[in-house]
Amino acid sequence: MTTPSPADPRTPALGLADAVRQGDRRALARAITLIESTRPDHRAQAEALLDALLPHTGNSVRVGISGVPGVGKSTFIEAFGLHVIGLGHKVAVLAIDPSSQRTGGSILGDKTRMVELSRNAGAFIRPSPAGATLGGVARRTREAMLVCEAAGFDVIVVETVGVGQSETAVADMVDLFLLLLLPAGGDELQGIKKGIVELADLVVVNKADGDLVAAARHAVAEYRHALAFLKPAVPDWRVPVLSCSAATNSGIDAVWATIGEHRAVGERSGARDARRAEQAGAWLWSEIRETLIDAFRAHPAVRTALPELEGRVRGGSLVPTAAARSLLERFRGG
Amino acid sequence: MTTPSPADPRTPALGLADAVRQGDRRALARAITLIESTRPDHRAQAEALLDALLPHTGNSVRVGISGVPGVGKSTFIEAFGLHVIGLGHKVAVLAIDPSSQRTGGSILGDKTRMVELSRNAGAFIRPSPAGATLGGVARRTREAMLVCEAAGFDVIVVETVGVGQSETAVADMVDLFLLLLLPAGGDELQGIKKGIVELADLVVVNKADGDLVAAARHAVAEYRHALAFLKPAVPDWRVPVLSCSAATNSGIDAVWATIGEHRAVGERSGARDARRAEQAGAWLWSEIRETLIDAFRAHPAVRTALPELEGRVRGGSLVPTAAARSLLERFRGG
Repeated sequence: MTTPSPADPRTPALGLADAVRQGDRRALARAITLIESTRPDHRAQAEALLDALLPHTGNSVRVGISGVPGVGKSTFIEAFGLHVIGLGHKVAVLAIDPSSQRTGGSILGDKTRMVELSRNAGAFIRPSPAGATLGGVARRTREAMLVCEAAGFDVIVVETVGVGQSETAVADMVDLFLLLLLPAGGDELQGIKKGIVELADLVVVNKADGDLVAAARHAVAEYRHALAFLKPAVPDWRVPVLSCSAATNSGIDAVWATIGEHRAVGERSGARDARRAEQAGAWLWSEIRETLIDAFRAHPAVRTALPELEGRVRGGSLVPTAAARSLLERFRGG
Repeated sequence: MTTPSPADPRTPALGLADAVRQGDRRALARAITLIESTRPDHRAQAEALLDALLPHTGNSVRVGISGVPGVGKSTFIEAFGLHVIGLGHKVAVLAIDPSSQRTGGSILGDKTRMVELSRNAGAFIRPSPAGATLGGVARRTREAMLVCEAAGFDVIVVETVGVGQSETAVADMVDLFLLLLLPAGGDELQGIKKGIVELADLVVVNKADGDLVAAARHAVAEYRHALAFLKPAVPDWRVPVLSCSAATNSGIDAVWATIGEHRAVGERSGARDARRAEQAGAWLWSEIRETLIDAFRAHPAVRTALPELEGRVRGGSLVPTAAARSLLERFRGG
């Protein structure tokens, strides 16, 4: 890239990039705020920022974590983060919260969830932006991940709530997708939406402590059996099922060791780089698709005609292809 | 709709619509050929045709059938079709073949597969169009389904090969998605891609005959166990696991009876109408998305710039959002 003149609106972004690179935490927070902004001039600055930071990204283990409410996700991430920081790493926790539109991001955004981790100098916790759509959150979370990497965080945790809307988005931006489960099989599993277990690279049964030790052991066996029916997404990697207790801090080391094994296997086979190249390509196309459809929905002539046409299609009195053509003619008309 | 004048290019479509309605099989075949055409004037005629036929559609049981190669799909569909015709129904078999681009549609298009069924006056078998993309095939198959319904076919079978690219498209256009499985659990199941079992409303283990009767019984038990972990997609409907032998014609009656139960449950709860309204709405949006992205890809300025930008994104030297914005500016530029 060329060096911009002082009058270039992107210049502040480059100063911010330097500060991020030097590990300035307030700069990091400001950089992510800039990325989350929808103002066009901010978007231009955000792009300049990312362009400057890109050569310094990619050097982290990217871990997605999901699980239904009640599985102990916050406790797990706190125990996991502190363990990993204890080994000399720096951990950033980002959230994708499909409910943030309704709740203002309170479920995942509440910093009081991970008190000890959030106070640790080796950790950076960033809640979901309030009021954003899932697509928007996912787009910006990918960029925030890059900024955290440039700031020297070498373990990135992208967490989401296990209700089935956001897991695919998370799995599509990480090296390893970890699914947290309750120490119970059968009916309990039914809180997990279709297809979520299949996304996992690693399954961990949490709460394997106290009265639940036997139940956890049983659940591990059940999930191993169920997972034996699934084809592995990564060559040379059979999805392991572990148990742990985040509350008593047991089994967390084995989870981290298994993430290390997954990384080693993926680096050896080239699967990790291939997955990242695939993710970047898919991200490009999802940006294109989302921006196109946003422009379509926002088009005045489309907005005027859409409700009636969509209603007729759903009611079975208009063929979808005909409705689509009619709307697209309005869109391309100007 | 208004009555077109004789000079209206849509007039021939209306004559064709009448012939289709009267059960003229050559008219039916011509109607589907018209629908599959990508010529703009043909698309306009196809829309007029569908518009005219739409009031006479919807009165069928729409069944999707999938299974890996070797599961005996053709034999099953033949036995199933003949059974249902024997009960007084008319059966149309349509195919969505993700491999058709490579093979010219030979896998599913080969009419010699279902010799007896294809000769039966109560059946209509239509192979996939050769050379079409999956998206294109799925779009046209939805329309072909409506044409077959207007022609009086009251059981529509949409078949696909169980390799994971087309099952979702099929499940999104039918009332019931039937997955055919081999009489074997564990490793054998791994030929089925992630998420396919979860799409099923009904699972049938085929080849339960001869030496394989015990294996089939065992497989039924295994799949019942595995499916117990999944949340039902339809209220009041636990996905049944049956076995049959298409070769010896045993168990086919129970499959049809179960499809009838599914229909009754769905009609009672309103789930079937809700699913169809949902499918029509999703079809509208998928038409819009596909047409938008087609226009984007075909745009000369996009085509010129895309390979280099996409390569840099995949290689990690360009942020996807920046590449997307650059391409979209070219697209909207003219």
